[in-house]
Parts: sequence; structure tokens; C-alpha cells
Amino acid sequence: MSKSEFDIIKRYFQRANNAADGVIIGIGDDCAILDIPVGQQLAVTTDSLVCGVHFFEDVDAYRLGYKSLAVNLSDLAAMGATAKWVSLAITLPEIDEPWLAEFCRGFFTLADKYNVQLVGGDTTKGPLSITVSAKGLVPSGKALTRYNAKNNDIICVSGPLGDGAVGLALKLEELSLTNRQPFIDALEFTEPRLLLGSQLINYASSCIDISDGLSQDLSHILKQSQCHADIHLETLPLSDALKKQIELKNLSLLQAWQFAVTGGDDYELLFTIPREKLTQLKENLRVIGLTCFEIGTIKVLDDVSAIDSKKSLIPSITFTHLQQPIDLNIDGWDHFK
Amino acid sequence: MSKSEFDIIKRYFQRANNAADGVIIGIGDDCAILDIPVGQQLAVTTDSLVCGVHFFEDVDAYRLGYKSLAVNLSDLAAMGATAKWVSLAITLPEIDEPWLAEFCRGFFTLADKYNVQLVGGDTTKGPLSITVSAKGLVPSGKALTRYNAKNNDIICVSGPLGDGAVGLALKLEELSLTNRQPFIDALEFTEPRLLLGSQLINYASSCIDISDGLSQDLSHILKQSQCHADIHLETLPLSDALKKQIELKNLSLLQAWQFAVTGGDDYELLFTIPREKLTQLKENLRVIGLTCFEIGTIKVLDDVSAIDSKKSLIPSITFTHLQQPIDLNIDGWDHFK
Repeated sequence: MSKSEFDIIKRYFQRANNAADGVIIGIGDDCAILDIPVGQQLAVTTDSLVCGVHFFEDVDAYRLGYKSLAVNLSDLAAMGATAKWVSLAITLPEIDEPWLAEFCRGFFTLADKYNVQLVGGDTTKGPLSITVSAKGLVPSGKALTRYNAKNNDIICVSGPLGDGAVGLALKLEELSLTNRQPFIDALEFTEPRLLLGSQLINYASSCIDISDGLSQDLSHILKQSQCHADIHLETLPLSDALKKQIELKNLSLLQAWQFAVTGGDDYELLFTIPREKLTQLKENLRVIGLTCFEIGTIKVLDDVSAIDSKKSLIPSITFTHLQQPIDLNIDGWDHFK
Repeated sequence: MSKSEFDIIKRYFQRANNAADGVIIGIGDDCAILDIPVGQQLAVTTDSLVCGVHFFEDVDAYRLGYKSLAVNLSDLAAMGATAKWVSLAITLPEIDEPWLAEFCRGFFTLADKYNVQLVGGDTTKGPLSITVSAKGLVPSGKALTRYNAKNNDIICVSGPLGDGAVGLALKLEELSLTNRQPFIDALEFTEPRLLLGSQLINYASSCIDISDGLSQDLSHILKQSQCHADIHLETLPLSDALKKQIELKNLSLLQAWQFAVTGGDDYELLFTIPREKLTQLKENLRVIGLTCFEIGTIKVLDDVSAIDSKKSLIPSITFTHLQQPIDLNIDGWDHFK
């Protein structure tokens, strides 16, 4: 049984320190048992990454391990939760130990960075896929939702948009650029904005992470908050790498905005905040070395034409450049299409 | 976008009543937000079912939906936890709505039976697989573990063993019987022993659910509790259907024991209990219409020959029939072998 399922799980996934931080029982029993402090609520999220859908077959194992955890921690960040514990279900076509070692190195690099503990999992034979279930804590009643954006709230994002989507286009050979690496890195080394999320709980009126593209993820907020949005394209933060490509005329500004607005895989936080709270938030962020970018405004309109048969508002996003409307293709990422 | 990922998730998985029972935010945000009552700890488990490994390609969707949840609830039962919430990550090769409707009907039939609420999930395109992450509550400090079995504790199981394994052998055409259905049903309609588990927290010294076979799952208890076990084969509970097959001489008694001891998929609870507590437990169970079966005894031996290089005891199980040792092949289910 030297190469058995149990040995693999143990060797790669079971680490010491099960008694740490709320973990009463960790890996190695039927369930993990976790202690939730009084005054905190539990935030839970589950995301799968499937080979051929979310990543390429030749993906670097280290980067895959890292990203599998990162996209889940990003969901915790979007609720304002502090990441605590994680379960990992991995399905592997075969036991490739160097691959598994690299996967774990990527996974635990990020887990250690945010003090997240692996408390359970399941290893199965089958087509390669990874499902992570992440758990975090948020002060009771303080979780950031999608349904509370209000008229005139400022729409902000936590960092540059579009690089992940450019990275994907490069991987898919839909685009060709000489300096690929910053975009591939943006696609594969997602940084969950946990520190920012935990700051936002006292300021933001709504929050989401941008996994499927700004327009699609903003639409979730708009639909659940029953409002519209104006986005000022000239205020969209773009990375230096993307600006350089525009400068070199490898991409037009319009193309860059397309990537920024419709591309997925940015994993920046998108949030709304009452105007009067923004200065205080920015000051608090500055102290801890963070920033955010204002990209537009929430609008509640008396707009009966945008009401569907279920009396639910169909949200609209108006994109402008220097106050002139711009027409962008705003279909997001939908892998069943 | 009428057939899009979002619509599918909504139509089949999002049900009303998100405000129920500890669910502050349910499906439809980045995370679910859950309230954990003071005095309770959280039990979490994750299990994947992969097509071709855990179920056959032609599996009935209703039964698959049922079993996907059942195997996870069984893990909660083994900790003595009350099942509360569940997340479902499902990867589908295509959108087959009748199939999805049947899958959900099976899943929610069991969820409703135990008042379990779906609070999140992820739907992805890819090879068929299902990963469920189940969450439950257990009074603080009361969770049933694997590491506390003691010398002379009685070993009990919650119900008949072997039927699931016979069902699997029939499906694999390794066995042929005229009356197949009770065994196929045992394989596919796992009943999580949640009510029993919640009773055991005041009695049992250790507990596990039998997913990989009695011998393999008992070995986990023995290894973690550093002890041995005597199992009396004549006391193993067998179903009426299995007894009938023995009577008809379609199976020998030895074959039936082989299935009972080494076969997986029973999902009965296996627990140890101090002898002096057994009568009281049985009386309490009787009142609520449950029972359990004594099948052996825990033994702590002064046995230096069974200590490995890491000074850990190598547990042994002695199988006897009317006090005579019987040699059984005790390899459990290991799908990487």
C-alpha cells in the first residue's frame, strides 16, 4: 500500500500543527472540527478548477496549486472575511509525485502567507480537477454583500484590470505580444485582496471580486441592489505593462478597455461606497500601504422601461469616455456558451 | 444567455428560504454567511464522486444526487454532528436538463429529510464529477473521534454489512444473482446514520463510518487509538437479502463475511463503547427505534513485535468464528491500486 491513496494524502497534505487557531480536529478524521469565536460568523465558499476549462493541460503545477486556493480566498475577501481554513478535493488521473509536490508547494505558499490551514480533503482518481472549499470569519452582521449599493455610491476597484484577460488571450493565441510574462503572471498568480476586504467591512455598501469580468460582476451588484451604473473608462486603472503595450501600439486604448471591462481573472475587489466615507477609507488604506481606484457611480433611475416581467430591474451600465458614451461589447465569461 | 451557467444554477439549485436556520446569506453572493450558535462547534467534510470511479456512467441521476449528499452526511454522522448546510460543486460535460432535474430531486429529497440547506456551489463544464462539502454542528468538545478507543471497549456497528459491496460486485458483473435489487439499492441509497451519531456523543469512545470496508475503517480507529481488535464473524449483522442468498447457496457464509468485512459502501457507523455504557445506550436507542450490533472487542496488548520504526503500533484485527481464528483477505477499497 506504499503508493496508496492514504499515503499520498498524508505525505503531501497532512502537515503538523493541527491544534492551531480554532482547529480542534484537523485532517485524519471523518470531519474537521472547528471552533468559531463568539461574535464572528462563518463565511464559506467553494470553487472548482477543471482542466481544459479553467486551466491548460500543461499548466505549471506550482501555479495551479497557488491559483486553486487564491480564487477561493478571493471570495472570502469579497465578503470582508478573514481566511482561516480550507478543504481540498483533488482528482488526479495518476499519481505523479513531482507534480503533486509542486502543486502542494504552490498551495501552501499562499496558505502560509495568509495563515490559512488545510483541515480536510479528498484525493480521487479521475480527470484532473480541483475543488477548494474555503472558510473564513467575519464579525457578525458585517459581511459585505451584493445587495446594498445605493444611489450616488462611488464604484471602486482595488487594482489594475485587464491583465488576466490579456494573459488568457495570449495563452489561447488570440493575441500576440513580445512581453508576455506580466500578463501570464497576472492570470496565474492571483492575489486575493484579503487585507483590503477586511478593511472594507466598515465602509463599503457592497462588494464582489472580479472573476468573470468587471461588467458581469458589476451586473451582479446592480441586479441585487436594483440600480444602474456609470463607468468612466478613462479612470479604469491599467497596469504599467498594459499601458506600455498601448504606447507601443500593440493594443489600442479601446482594446485595453475591452480587456479591462469584459475579461475575467482579475480577482481585484469591486466595491461601492457612500461618497462621504471614501476619504476616510482612503486615508486608512494609505496607512497600511493600500489604495483603491474610483471608476464610476451608482445610479437609481425612475426607469420603467428597464423592468422585466417579474418586476425586477434590468440593470444597465453606461460606459463613458470624457463624458461621451462608448459602446463596448460587455459579454462576460460564461463557459457553457 | 437563457441557458447560461447562471440561469442553470438558479433554476435548479437556488431555492427560497435562505433566511432559515443560521443562514444569514445563502446562494447568490461570493460566500455563504452562517451563524454558529454559542456552545457548538463546526464539523466540515468534503467528498468527491467521480464518474467511472465512484459511480457508473449510466448511473440513475436521482440516485447519484441522493448518494452525493448521503456520503457526506455520513461523515457528519460519524462525528456525532447534526447536519446543517451543504455546498455543491458539480462538473457536467453538457447541460442535460432532465438529468439535472433528476439529480436535484435526489439531492434535495435527502437534504429535506435531514433539514439540510444548500448554501453555495459551483457549476462547471467538464468530465462529470460532484464534490460536496457538508457542514454540521456538534456540542463543543463532544465530537466523536477515531483516537479514543480503549482496552475492552465493545466494537459495534449500526446495521447490516456487505450489501453495498455485493451491489458493486453485481454492477461489475463479478457476481451474478437473481435478486439483484436489494443490493443495488444498498449501494446507491446510502442512509446516513445521523440520528444514531447524535445519540452516540454521550456514549461512544470512538466512531467512523464504513465507507471503505469494515477492516480498513476499523484499522483507522485502531491505528489512531493504538490498539488491536477481535472481531467475531458470527456476530456480524447480515441483511435478510444476504442471508437468503446464503440459504440458496448462491454465496457461501465465508464469501458473505468477505463482502461484509472487506467491501466498501455500507456507510453504517462503526463505534467503540465502554462495556458499562452499552446497556444504557441500547435502551436509549430502543426508545427512538434504533439498534446496534456488538461485533467484537478492543484489545491493548503488550506486543512489541507490532511496533514500526516510528514507534507507532501496527494494528491487527483478529477474525474469529466461534472462537476459532479465520483468515480473511482484508484489503480495503483503494482506487489508486
